[in-house]
Amino acid sequence: KRIAVLPGDGIGQEVMEEAVRVLKAVADCFDHKFEFTEGLIGGAAIDAVGNPLPPETLDICKESDAILLGAVGGPKWSDVPSDIRPEKGLLGLRKEMGLFANLRPVTAYRQLVNASPLKREVIENVDLMIVRELTGGIYFGKSERRGENQDIAVDTLQYDVKEIERIVEKAFQLARVRRKKLTSVDKANVLESSRMWREIVDQISVKYPDVEVEHMLVDSTAMKLIHHPETFDVVVTENMFGDILSDEASMIAGSLGMLPSASLRSDSAGLYEPVHGSAPDIAGENKANPLAMILSAAMMLKYSFHLEKEAHAVESAVTEVLNQGYCTPDVGISGKCIGTKEMIDKVMDKLN
Amino acid sequence: KRIAVLPGDGIGQEVMEEAVRVLKAVADCFDHKFEFTEGLIGGAAIDAVGNPLPPETLDICKESDAILLGAVGGPKWSDVPSDIRPEKGLLGLRKEMGLFANLRPVTAYRQLVNASPLKREVIENVDLMIVRELTGGIYFGKSERRGENQDIAVDTLQYDVKEIERIVEKAFQLARVRRKKLTSVDKANVLESSRMWREIVDQISVKYPDVEVEHMLVDSTAMKLIHHPETFDVVVTENMFGDILSDEASMIAGSLGMLPSASLRSDSAGLYEPVHGSAPDIAGENKANPLAMILSAAMMLKYSFHLEKEAHAVESAVTEVLNQGYCTPDVGISGKCIGTKEMIDKVMDKLN
Ligand SMILES: CC(C)[C@H](C(=O)O)[C@@H](O)C(=O)O
Ligand SMILES: CC(C)[C@H](C(=O)O)[C@@H](O)C(=O)O
Repeated sequence: KRIAVLPGDGIGQEVMEEAVRVLKAVADCFDHKFEFTEGLIGGAAIDAVGNPLPPETLDICKESDAILLGAVGGPKWSDVPSDIRPEKGLLGLRKEMGLFANLRPVTAYRQLVNASPLKREVIENVDLMIVRELTGGIYFGKSERRGENQDIAVDTLQYDVKEIERIVEKAFQLARVRRKKLTSVDKANVLESSRMWREIVDQISVKYPDVEVEHMLVDSTAMKLIHHPETFDVVVTENMFGDILSDEASMIAGSLGMLPSASLRSDSAGLYEPVHGSAPDIAGENKANPLAMILSAAMMLKYSFHLEKEAHAVESAVTEVLNQGYCTPDVGISGKCIGTKEMIDKVMDKLN
Repeated sequence: KRIAVLPGDGIGQEVMEEAVRVLKAVADCFDHKFEFTEGLIGGAAIDAVGNPLPPETLDICKESDAILLGAVGGPKWSDVPSDIRPEKGLLGLRKEMGLFANLRPVTAYRQLVNASPLKREVIENVDLMIVRELTGGIYFGKSERRGENQDIAVDTLQYDVKEIERIVEKAFQLARVRRKKLTSVDKANVLESSRMWREIVDQISVKYPDVEVEHMLVDSTAMKLIHHPETFDVVVTENMFGDILSDEASMIAGSLGMLPSASLRSDSAGLYEPVHGSAPDIAGENKANPLAMILSAAMMLKYSFHLEKEAHAVESAVTEVLNQGYCTPDVGISGKCIGTKEMIDKVMDKLN
């Protein structure tokens, strides 16, 4: 299996190193062969070649079976022109690779309940997955200034039927192998694209009679995600709503440092990255939490390579280490505070 | 002072009755004269005249010094065509009256801390105000289906400089009389309208050197609102982001039943309504929480009539009643549970 490795910026570098270390151990244990090819992306690529997504990187990704990404961005590049900002590298990669389905699972680790701003009884039984459309909507619609004096700014939220159908199908399939409940989130009382979205969900739902479907407005969802997060199983929504709601939902877990993500398309290719950013303030200090990155690697084993057993081994190792009370400083709870590398040492102990 | 009274649907009727009762008491106590004129809106107006915002209602509003609104909508009207849905009455009223600034204060009542899904220490010191742009953006941009087979849906997020300037000015003015901190929320790494928004905030900030300004991305804000809500003072943002974030923030208070809102323009006219909806499931049962409605009336006294003392009297009366442990059933905490009318009886006792 060929894996493209894009560390990116800030703590992306460190957590990626640890993920590769874990994957090599998994390969040894289970007798697989993983081949890693590194590429530049984001600020690191801007510094090296003036382009946040160099063509060579895109080639590496296209020739790989899966992509691991660390994190991109940082204040260092806040003044570069907006068309070559580090984020453009990430957005470009998603779009070019056609990775239309962003999966963000949220579970509250029992051990980290003190880190969450939410009450224990609210988060105890949370096990939800946000499925966000990732290559359409207002992120990729026409965007311009117009009018004399350029004093009107316009962005366009556009979806066609096919784009909505494929993400909704994906969400139904995921719901079917989970608790069989799908919440589709929109703003149908205001947006035409939401009304079309709702129609398509209703049409497709006929094929999944075993999955319970509900429609919920995005504003109500923003409330209910905090008030009764345990009532959600799979939540499917368009790109921008998904961006906001998945970040909101991440607070259930207490720490961004625990949350993985997968970006998929219809075949088995995928991009796997932690939900957290590049955290330049703690970069290079062996303080970053590597668990989101290695849990993303576990998602890769599962979704791109169909290595369920191996994915499970990584996830269990993480849980065991947390059970022993270890954590990195970011989590902000009183535990046995250890560094990035030491955390992965512990995880590797459990793996073997 | 002439007040337009639009009860609307569901519990809107009941809570409005109570608000009028309180306002009459305030008028007596402080020797003012309030004149109330009732109008139809939302589902009630659809049923009566087939239009969620009849011209007569708009006339009443235009001839009044302020508007009180209960709530609109309900499943009863879920099948009416989208151009005459109950919500269209509300959106039309905001737009026709030019009420571009929606103010939603969020404070966590000490007495209701058990009702919040957030931990006590997280919400204890929260005192924030979301200022949402209310008459522009994707709510009012061009929206259509196109393509052969009508299989493309498009919504347009559009702002011009003037629309952004006036809401940002309003937010700075509010921050100046509060804790002097303004958080401007956008998605400048993706949207052109957000980049223009950010530029305008920076320009206007020069006039308010005493106000500290920060820019925050909408996704980060969705996290921080739950993680560290006490760090916010005034939060200003565009229409759709404001819809989502203000509903999210309402969970801090624990109950929607406590949250008022004001929708203002540059003169002293304003529309005042509770944040909660029409709650058809409990309508007519004397169970609705009337406090959000009367706190909205208090905002009217303050923002439209500049009757600070009177507004304060209503707010203090509410706090005193809560201090005695009374609450309506919606709040869901163990307290002295009383009905809609009884709650207002208690408030009136404190007023006199
Ligand atoms: C960096 C940014 C453009 C990106 C997004 O909004 O998609 C990020 O917030 C994310 O969620 O991955
Ligand atoms: C009813 C709906 C159109 C409205 C909105 O989105 O503005 C409501 O959610 C609100 O926040 O007042």
